[in-house]
Amino acid sequence: MTLEKHQNKRIMGKSKVLVVGATGYIGKRIVKASLDQGHTTYVLQRHEIGLDIDKLQLLLSFKKQGARLVEGSFSDQKSLVEAVKKVDVVICTLSGVHFKSHSILMQLKLVDAIKEAGNVKSLSYDLFAYGKGSDSRLATKHVSRFLPSEFGMDPARMGHALAPGRETFDQKMIVRKAIEEAKIPFTYVTASCFAGYFVGNLSQLETLTPPKDKIYLYGDGNVKAVYMDEDDIATFTIKTIDDPRTLNKTLYMRPPENILSQRKLVEIWEKLSGKELEKIIISGEEFLASMEDKDYAAKGGMGHFYHISYEGSLTNFEIGEDGEEASNLYPEVICTRMDEYLKIFL
Amino acid sequence: MTLEKHQNKRIMGKSKVLVVGATGYIGKRIVKASLDQGHTTYVLQRHEIGLDIDKLQLLLSFKKQGARLVEGSFSDQKSLVEAVKKVDVVICTLSGVHFKSHSILMQLKLVDAIKEAGNVKSLSYDLFAYGKGSDSRLATKHVSRFLPSEFGMDPARMGHALAPGRETFDQKMIVRKAIEEAKIPFTYVTASCFAGYFVGNLSQLETLTPPKDKIYLYGDGNVKAVYMDEDDIATFTIKTIDDPRTLNKTLYMRPPENILSQRKLVEIWEKLSGKELEKIIISGEEFLASMEDKDYAAKGGMGHFYHISYEGSLTNFEIGEDGEEASNLYPEVICTRMDEYLKIFL
Repeated sequence: MTLEKHQNKRIMGKSKVLVVGATGYIGKRIVKASLDQGHTTYVLQRHEIGLDIDKLQLLLSFKKQGARLVEGSFSDQKSLVEAVKKVDVVICTLSGVHFKSHSILMQLKLVDAIKEAGNVKSLSYDLFAYGKGSDSRLATKHVSRFLPSEFGMDPARMGHALAPGRETFDQKMIVRKAIEEAKIPFTYVTASCFAGYFVGNLSQLETLTPPKDKIYLYGDGNVKAVYMDEDDIATFTIKTIDDPRTLNKTLYMRPPENILSQRKLVEIWEKLSGKELEKIIISGEEFLASMEDKDYAAKGGMGHFYHISYEGSLTNFEIGEDGEEASNLYPEVICTRMDEYLKIFL
Repeated sequence: MTLEKHQNKRIMGKSKVLVVGATGYIGKRIVKASLDQGHTTYVLQRHEIGLDIDKLQLLLSFKKQGARLVEGSFSDQKSLVEAVKKVDVVICTLSGVHFKSHSILMQLKLVDAIKEAGNVKSLSYDLFAYGKGSDSRLATKHVSRFLPSEFGMDPARMGHALAPGRETFDQKMIVRKAIEEAKIPFTYVTASCFAGYFVGNLSQLETLTPPKDKIYLYGDGNVKAVYMDEDDIATFTIKTIDDPRTLNKTLYMRPPENILSQRKLVEIWEKLSGKELEKIIISGEEFLASMEDKDYAAKGGMGHFYHISYEGSLTNFEIGEDGEEASNLYPEVICTRMDEYLKIFL
């Protein structure tokens, strides 16, 4: 098969997808979206799953819905290469929560596996179609798209981030560099405030459900964030994978109706519940001071929270030429509005 | 409402159910079965859920399916009493896995809450219908049925069990004693080998999926166990709650097609997969010796495993007058056969 035919195959059919990290919070939604949008979907079943029955049964439920489980391990590079070879698109959704330093090592292993799978493929094309190819030609025959585990604030804009939370961004940038150096086609899906973590609790720390009496407002409460149902994030993510417009670009999500201030979010809940909450203003200085005595992971999470809630890191920039906005590209996707989302908490 | 009318209400309608421990392995299936069988289903939403987003989203998915969440905490006895007062039947599915000693304390608190809820109800009946009642009359007005967290081997038959696994049985007997002393109507649902833990792995330890080459057979491999899909266990459990035949009795599950030896189970898999496995016989002595260097929890689990796999503790007795067999009572329930169950692993 020549490169041209290979590309045609992609245009005519839907790409085959491998999801790595499929049992995670975002991963399980990505698998569902991939199946829903008609992609042949492979899921890495890691040996490390051990005796985690919930994860195994989640994987088996994917299989029942049509996904194909492929066994592999990050301790067995060959197994990763074999898994990658089965597909056109690789999506990594390994958790970076709790600032797991091994997540970056796993992602770099995955990048290596994609390189290796690509080079092997190229070699066989070369022999049949082109003869011996140059290095640059080899590099074009990787998977058609790799989506590393992003789904957070755009790390390219977070060089100023607070320690220790900045580690997450630094690690994502290292993975991006490895991808780009290997000339692997990519899309970086930056996400918004996951509704599960930011909306049910009206952006309060230490709870996941709406407060009953009083609420902390960050600064004046007017900083704009983007609140998204995680299923919509997954839908947009899968939409991008065969889309030439998102090739080697960063995807941002800013559906107009999902851009809200915290004050507006609270107002929506008050209207739904029919009860006004006492509001306590927390200044940026107070918030930063409250981080001091927290442990490493909590400090990291609170730092991210600070950037979103006080600096507006999700909305305080224009999307440039290296980016695309999801609701603009895919107006057919109807995103859940947060007044709808909050109703389940009534 | 008089006692007679109260009883009529139960006969005419389906009882209202409260599930405590609803996000657990068995609990989530019990909730589904309760909703499927048309019961108004309440689920205790514990404050202790904290930042566990998976548990919260599971609870919200129950709510979307029609369950009612009721907030409460084991640190707030009044909240338990209020939750119990809403229903006729209480089902506890708190995990006893890892030999959590606080599980027994929580169950005893629940028994107390049922007693308290019952007494308050009685008092109001007494005032309007009977005047001051005797203690024995008070005792008849508890919830109509309580199912404690059993779902394992029948603890009444496990007085000889190996330490430290015997703790589970001892604790269940303490809970039973509290229930019976309080004259709370009960059903003890003893279960069988959960397919998730015993079938996918062909009863091997340290894996949940079928071994690829060799398999350990326990003794001659001919001891009979009962292998059940957990959804069927939940279906039977809900069937019992309004059934006078299971009042103050123990339910055993022995659908004829689900009673199999380990050897037969392996044979089924070999036939499905088309591959014969090397069999390694482990004598009872060898198995017991292999427990020696294990930690507390593993030793406990292995002890249970020994009773099932070598002694046949699920099948080595006749069901007496204090018990009923599920497939006999509910022949309309078609249980998943293990050849069907194993197909997902192909």
